[in-house]
Order: sequence, then structure tokens, then C-alpha cells
Amino acid sequence: MNRIDRVIEKMKAAGLEQLVVSDPKSIWYLTGVDVEPFERLFALRLSAERKHTFFLNKLYNVSNTGLEEVWFSDTDDYIGLMAEKIGNSGRVGIDKEWKAGFLIPLMERLPGMQPVLGSDCVDDCRAVKDEAEIALMKKASEINDAVNTQASEYVREGMTEKEVAAFIDRTFLEYGASGNSFTSIVSFGANAADPHHEPDDTRVKEGDCVLIDMGCVYQRYCSDMTRTFYFRKADPEQTKIHDLVREANERAESIIKPGVRFCDIDAVARDLITEAGYGEYFNHRLGHFIGQTDHEKGDVSSANHRVAEPGMIFSIEPGIYLPGQHGVRVEDLVLVTEDGCEVLNKADKHWRIIG
Amino acid sequence: MNRIDRVIEKMKAAGLEQLVVSDPKSIWYLTGVDVEPFERLFALRLSAERKHTFFLNKLYNVSNTGLEEVWFSDTDDYIGLMAEKIGNSGRVGIDKEWKAGFLIPLMERLPGMQPVLGSDCVDDCRAVKDEAEIALMKKASEINDAVNTQASEYVREGMTEKEVAAFIDRTFLEYGASGNSFTSIVSFGANAADPHHEPDDTRVKEGDCVLIDMGCVYQRYCSDMTRTFYFRKADPEQTKIHDLVREANERAESIIKPGVRFCDIDAVARDLITEAGYGEYFNHRLGHFIGQTDHEKGDVSSANHRVAEPGMIFSIEPGIYLPGQHGVRVEDLVLVTEDGCEVLNKADKHWRIIG
Repeated sequence: MNRIDRVIEKMKAAGLEQLVVSDPKSIWYLTGVDVEPFERLFALRLSAERKHTFFLNKLYNVSNTGLEEVWFSDTDDYIGLMAEKIGNSGRVGIDKEWKAGFLIPLMERLPGMQPVLGSDCVDDCRAVKDEAEIALMKKASEINDAVNTQASEYVREGMTEKEVAAFIDRTFLEYGASGNSFTSIVSFGANAADPHHEPDDTRVKEGDCVLIDMGCVYQRYCSDMTRTFYFRKADPEQTKIHDLVREANERAESIIKPGVRFCDIDAVARDLITEAGYGEYFNHRLGHFIGQTDHEKGDVSSANHRVAEPGMIFSIEPGIYLPGQHGVRVEDLVLVTEDGCEVLNKADKHWRIIG
Repeated sequence: MNRIDRVIEKMKAAGLEQLVVSDPKSIWYLTGVDVEPFERLFALRLSAERKHTFFLNKLYNVSNTGLEEVWFSDTDDYIGLMAEKIGNSGRVGIDKEWKAGFLIPLMERLPGMQPVLGSDCVDDCRAVKDEAEIALMKKASEINDAVNTQASEYVREGMTEKEVAAFIDRTFLEYGASGNSFTSIVSFGANAADPHHEPDDTRVKEGDCVLIDMGCVYQRYCSDMTRTFYFRKADPEQTKIHDLVREANERAESIIKPGVRFCDIDAVARDLITEAGYGEYFNHRLGHFIGQTDHEKGDVSSANHRVAEPGMIFSIEPGIYLPGQHGVRVEDLVLVTEDGCEVLNKADKHWRIIG
């Protein structure tokens, strides 16, 4: 079944006759049309009756979509053109990414339309990767493993976080990646206590933890992993926490298989950390889905009661962050298989002294 | 008057008691709080009565905003927390950038709320730069001029578009920019006929036009310029078009001063090109506003009947694109002054042979 047909099945299950898709990555996924619209309107209207419409600015370099095309220029009334096609009644699925700058004017034109969030119909398809997608994501993680290991060997006395991040970024390109899937995180010492720290001019010194969270894009698909090392020497207090975080990571991965609920995967890791007395320092969800973007719809958290299905790829990334002191995170991507899961990151995740 | 007070004046003029600001750049502009929220909720509720509320995820590294703060974690009912503060009645201004993934659930919670687009209240302030912003944008354009000239000297026989783009990107960093304001466009020959062409492996050859559209970010603020050159020799048919485009650029710039309508600025350039018979090949608006992002709200087009005000900065970028043949664009940034305008790009814009 092709991708649009899979979405239409989900639209029907959700009682949606129409769905406005605006996320450029969803549109590429469904049609192969690749546009970066910036602030301009770019939308695909899917209809349960298979009368789809593409709304396209004349500036886009697009041809022969095989679908009905409505073309407009910057000065045309493009919201009016959309309103005409959608019609003034009924529930209309709207992409979660669509901006209010388009949605509110459309609502004003169509007071009888009832907008509802509808992008789950696409996102739930995107969450389950097909063979071609899996192959690309494996390759992206293979590059990530190799560059992570190289980065750990690259760190030398006095080097700054920014220098290590720049090394990662350029090495990704040498390995054939098209770029980063997110800004590389390199955190030394207490900086690692902020899970989203941005690399700065801090220099590494003996005894620092070195947290490296990184990912690349390979042929549109992302990788994402974290390893935490220690520079020249390791404080046993810190490595004890590293062992705990790694064990939380491994225990969570050990229970992943089709049918297991994401909240239960989260709980396995969280309970271990909580029982050890660090629950309040693990202040984020266990993982997130990933694909064409680093964070896609779906997560591994106490709030997600859905179950894993074969083909899903997401991160498992427990962490403990002690403000003013240090931080540890151990993150892999995993692929749900028919009877378990495959960990896409093969790099060793035990703590290790570098430098 | 501080920036929030300026926005409140505009809210009152628009009859808005409340405004939800979600664009991280607008929030930084108003509060100095700098967060990259990715898919998470990040919003500032401004109230005409000056009881503002910040909605913040516990993962954000933010403290002491001086405003009322509502903190939540990923698994909290953050839309419920927002709904409580906003209340179930009246017109509420919504940021044009806000995603349906937040807006639709909020509308479902607050059926009595009437969402209207409200971000003009902030965007119209952002459009008029203050002294500090002007200084940064001048510096960003100074860097852009220098690197554009260097790039024109860098092009050599057989070089690819990607190589020239990579040179631009790394030279920006050497000049102290933090990065690009958009993906550099380097287009050789017929590639220049697509205004948004992405650099590829095309190699430059004698007689090619070489269109370079580039911009950097300096301390958060952007530059953006285009120059078109000819490699080794220039076809008189093409340079005649270049002269025409440059003249369109210069004529438009010559009429800019406070009180002039943007549609009239667009018309001056467009009429000249149309009279010369190339109107259909100038298929985009004359310019766009710019600041913290390359394209900000506001443009120079036939649809914009508003007038220029001192402190506004926008691009003037006429172009002629002949499919399968070549393209020319000449683009500067201009700053509206008390009695005219200052062209921020000083690099010569006449056609020139390079290589």
C-alpha cells in the first residue's frame, strides 16, 4: 500500500474527509515533492475520496506532481483559493505544524469549517519506517558511531567545547553525511548538568565529564546518540552515576518489543534511577521518535500509553544532571523488530577515560 | 518607551486585551530571554493591563524573567495551564508563527475565545529598528560586502557552485559572523534562472553569469545581498539585462524616504523592467523586511500599501530570469532615514567580468 493510501485509511478511521498537510517533510514523504517554503504557503490537501490538491507558489521549482495543482503568486489571494477547495463545512484535519498565519485567515473565510488536529494520520505512518528508511537510518547511525568515537579520541588538554563540536561537524561531512541533525552538544564538567547546553569556550580539564550528544543527516534521515566520557581521570562518584544511567538505558532497551507500552519503557529506566535516589535529576522523557527530523511525533514518556510496533525508531536516553557539578546521558537509537529491538548504535557505552 | 510598551500601544489600537507571542525571536526581542523550544511550548502572554505571563518548560535554561512564570514539564497539561490564564472569552491575539498543534487544542479548551492574528503588534515594532539594531545590521552588511567581493575573486575555471558556497560560508566565520542568514545561493549560467537555486556540482565555464546571493548573521542580526558577475567573458545580451536590473534597483532606491508606499517602490522597478519587455521574467516581489531572520514580516510588493518609516530595513532586489538561459539579480539592503535612505551594501553593483 502506498503512503498516501495508508494516510487515507487513518483519515477514515479518524472520521476525516479532508486533511491539510503542511509539514514539508510530510509532503515529501507522501509525494516526493521537495520544497523549502520559508514563510510562504505550501500545502497538500488530501481527500478521503482521493481528489487531492496541491497549493503551490509559482516560485517553487515543482512540476508534474500528478495531483491537481493550484498555483498562486505572492500577491494572489491564496487563502481564498484554499477556502474554495475546502468548502465551508465539516471537520477538516489540520497539520500540527501549520502556522496560525495561515490557519486563522482560513478559519475566518470558512466559519462553518471545524478545524481539528489531523497530522497524526501522517505522523503515525511516518513513525513506522519502511525498509528503505531503515537502511538510511542505519547508515546515519553507523556514521554517528564512527564520528563519536573519533571525537572522543580528538579531545586534548585545553581544547574548548566549540572546537570539539566543530571537529564533529566537519567529520560528518567527510563520512558522507549532508550535515548535522541538530546542533552538536559538547559539554565539559558542570556544563553537562544542562541537558541542552550549547558548546561554548569552556576548556576541558582533568576530571571533567565530557558529554557528547550528536547526530547527522544521511540522505534526509537522522541519527542521534550520546556518550559520556571522563577526561584523564574519573571521579568514582561520577562513574557510579554513569553505571546507573547506562544500566537504565540497557534495561529499557531489554524490554522493547512489539506490544510494549512506551510509558512502561520509560518507567523501567526511571524507576531504576528513582530507586537509586536520583529521580529528580532525570528531568526529561526517556526518548523521542526520529526520522527526517531529529524529534518527530511520538515519545517514550509516562504520558504515552501507545505500544511499540515493528519499524518504529526512537531514542532511549536516560540522564542524571547534578546542577553545578556534572551530568551523564547515555543515548542510543533503537529499531523495533518483529520480536524485540535492534540497537542502532554499536559504540561502547560504558564509561571510559579519554585524553 | 520600552519594547513591550510599544507593543501594548499597538494592542490597544487593535482592540486586543491579550496577545500570545510564540516566535522565539519576538520573545527575545521583548524580554531578552533566549530559548530554542523545538517542538515544545514556549509562549509569552502579553496583557494590555501589563499582567504578562511566561509559559516555560522546565527544560529551558531561564531564570528571573521579571514576569509571572508558569512552569510545566513535558507530561503536564500545559494547554490547560494556558487556558486558565487566558480565560474563555473575547478576542485573543495569536502569533502568526504559532503552530496549530498548540492553537487547536487551546481553541477546544476555550470555545468562547475568538482567536485573531495579532503578531502585527510585535512585528510592526520589530520592523522599525532602533540604534543598537541598526549598528548590528550595518556590521552584518559590511561583512557581507567584503565576503561577496572575496567570493567574486575566488571563482576559478572548473570550480563548482558548492565550492564557492563553501568558501563564502567559512569566510563569514573568519569575519566574525556566527553563520549564514540563509543557505548561500551560487548559480552559474542557466541555473541562475531559478531565483532559489541551490548550489550543486555545476562547474563554471566561460560566458556564464555567476549569481551570488548571500547573507550572514552578526550578533543575531542578518544581512542579505546579491551581485551578478560574468565569468571570463560577458554576452552583450546578458549585460544589457544586467544594466536594466541595476537601473531598476537604483531607481527604486532613489525614491525611498519616509511616507513613500511600498507598492510604489515596487512599481518603479517593475515598470522599468516591464517597459523593457521583461515583466513576466521578474516573477517575485521587489523586496522583503529583514532583521533577526532573513525574511521578516513586511515586503516591498504591489500588495503592500503601507508607507516607509525611519528605521525600517528591507531588501531591494529586482531580477530577470530567462528559463534555460541565465538570470540576473541585484540586491541591497536599505535603511530608511529621516529624509531618504541609506544603502547598507557598498559593494559595486555594475556588471563585472571575473575569473
